[in-house]
Amino acid sequence: MRITLLAGGIGAARFLRGLVAATPEADITVIGNTGDDLTLYGLRVSPDLDTVMYTLGGGNDEARGWGRADESWNALAEVTAYGATPSWFGLGDRDIGTHLVRNALLSEGRTLTEVTQALTQRWRLPFTLIPMTNDRVETHVVVDDPDEPGKQRRLHFQEYWVRHHAELAVADIRFEGIENSEPAPGVLEAIQNADVIVFPPSNPVVSIGPILAVPGIRDAVRNAHAPVIGLSPIVGGAVVRGMADKLLPAIGVDTSATGVALHFGSRTDQGLLDGWLVDEQDADAVERVQAAGIACRARPLLMNDVPLATDIARATLDLAAEVTK
Amino acid sequence: MRITLLAGGIGAARFLRGLVAATPEADITVIGNTGDDLTLYGLRVSPDLDTVMYTLGGGNDEARGWGRADESWNALAEVTAYGATPSWFGLGDRDIGTHLVRNALLSEGRTLTEVTQALTQRWRLPFTLIPMTNDRVETHVVVDDPDEPGKQRRLHFQEYWVRHHAELAVADIRFEGIENSEPAPGVLEAIQNADVIVFPPSNPVVSIGPILAVPGIRDAVRNAHAPVIGLSPIVGGAVVRGMADKLLPAIGVDTSATGVALHFGSRTDQGLLDGWLVDEQDADAVERVQAAGIACRARPLLMNDVPLATDIARATLDLAAEVTK
Repeated sequence: MRITLLAGGIGAARFLRGLVAATPEADITVIGNTGDDLTLYGLRVSPDLDTVMYTLGGGNDEARGWGRADESWNALAEVTAYGATPSWFGLGDRDIGTHLVRNALLSEGRTLTEVTQALTQRWRLPFTLIPMTNDRVETHVVVDDPDEPGKQRRLHFQEYWVRHHAELAVADIRFEGIENSEPAPGVLEAIQNADVIVFPPSNPVVSIGPILAVPGIRDAVRNAHAPVIGLSPIVGGAVVRGMADKLLPAIGVDTSATGVALHFGSRTDQGLLDGWLVDEQDADAVERVQAAGIACRARPLLMNDVPLATDIARATLDLAAEVTK
Repeated sequence: MRITLLAGGIGAARFLRGLVAATPEADITVIGNTGDDLTLYGLRVSPDLDTVMYTLGGGNDEARGWGRADESWNALAEVTAYGATPSWFGLGDRDIGTHLVRNALLSEGRTLTEVTQALTQRWRLPFTLIPMTNDRVETHVVVDDPDEPGKQRRLHFQEYWVRHHAELAVADIRFEGIENSEPAPGVLEAIQNADVIVFPPSNPVVSIGPILAVPGIRDAVRNAHAPVIGLSPIVGGAVVRGMADKLLPAIGVDTSATGVALHFGSRTDQGLLDGWLVDEQDADAVERVQAAGIACRARPLLMNDVPLATDIARATLDLAAEVTK
């Protein structure tokens, strides 16, 4: 069975641990969001690709949710001592090792696809991880300037997210460079050849959103022969993790399991979803989502450990089988 | 008193500690060798500038002689785990912090002079540290290829020095890019306006050599009104530190206190030196060096601690005063 995921960071990574446990034989391709990528001190950093890689490679910090286990922070302490900005981004020493290798390969002219392949080799991932694009796309957030009332400022998504803790009012979200980007090699094929396509519970605005916005990807998903099953990142009316509740209103989407399903839309109506899983707490969403032409089931969706994530992956594949009939 | 030094790494740094102690009021400019600079994982590294900066800023590892005190090595361990090359260069995590700041500033378009000024501010150096040039110059060593007898290979000096421990037979030494390089701002002025010019006991071939090879610098030294005093890096017929004994023969220079003095030559004869200090063990060199037109004194030259280095700095200034009369 060929399974293709559109993945952000931690939500996708935790779902993937369950998926790999549920279907060890499956041929899984993970299309990673690169809209969060940023340049720090001249180094190109790919936070979402790295979170997936570290988590599935067993090198992640489980409690923190991002970055490396057994991490030290001496390089960043020095950067701060020099008074250099930005020092708000958490770059651990081990993590920097990854960025140095990425940087070396990119500066040799290799593509991010090639670099990601080289990096993931070490971690022996039980799937193929590819970036959504090899072109530079950056998610920027237009916010009300905290220093100058009435004025707006544009920030890199990571600066908004990490430095400002998503506390500034968002006026707009832009994927810079997206119009001229192309899907990376293998992306469209992975969608076209899939038996199941999954939207894990990643941020619909800034994780799944940029992937779908790369020209050609949304159409490929819509035209795929495989069923497309999504998992709600909203549980009990709140985000499980992260701050999607700050971003959904900015694109006019209700912060609810139903709201996100309707945002992606039904494939029967020019949308993307065949199926949608909501948490048991959101069982009241089932009827409304189904009425919109999306098969919907309520299941426990909190991925607190790998066995729970495995159950969720099984429920996802069950729903895919159901809608395929 | 204005004192200008042509500096390599550790030898210059140890001399400088003595000089600062001996003449706290002096206005000192240090022209640093950048021929050792190299690009590692896309980061520009300036080993000699950093050794001077760390040592005089009190942030160096005293026992190792290079890099930072209280250092950790996690980033490099990761780079090695990825199987990336080169991992032979010792990049500690704290040291990487310096390179990240340098990299960020260079990628903003700042010159190495500006970057060095920004970095040294933190360390409150009691002198001005400037690179010999803002252009990219790299010292390469042509060696007999250890894998293919009869063939030659060209290595970056650091690769020859650190990776191969200077154990390959050297056929040639080249300063790549030197013909088109220009002295960095302030370099010629520091030489022209100096009251004393010092060649500390740095490597004459790959530390002092590249500085003098930047077009305009050798002539500026030769035409300076200040006396030029050098310190022998060879004590008792052997190098005090480093592996200059491997490099001197490659440029046809005898590995002795006399050999190096004659290599620089007397200003009375189109050369560079007015005075030369040799160690007491090399007292027999005095006569021959003086016969070549260079005032020569034998003094204890081993800089095992700051008081000893201070005595050596005083002896240097004494000889400068003597030859000025």
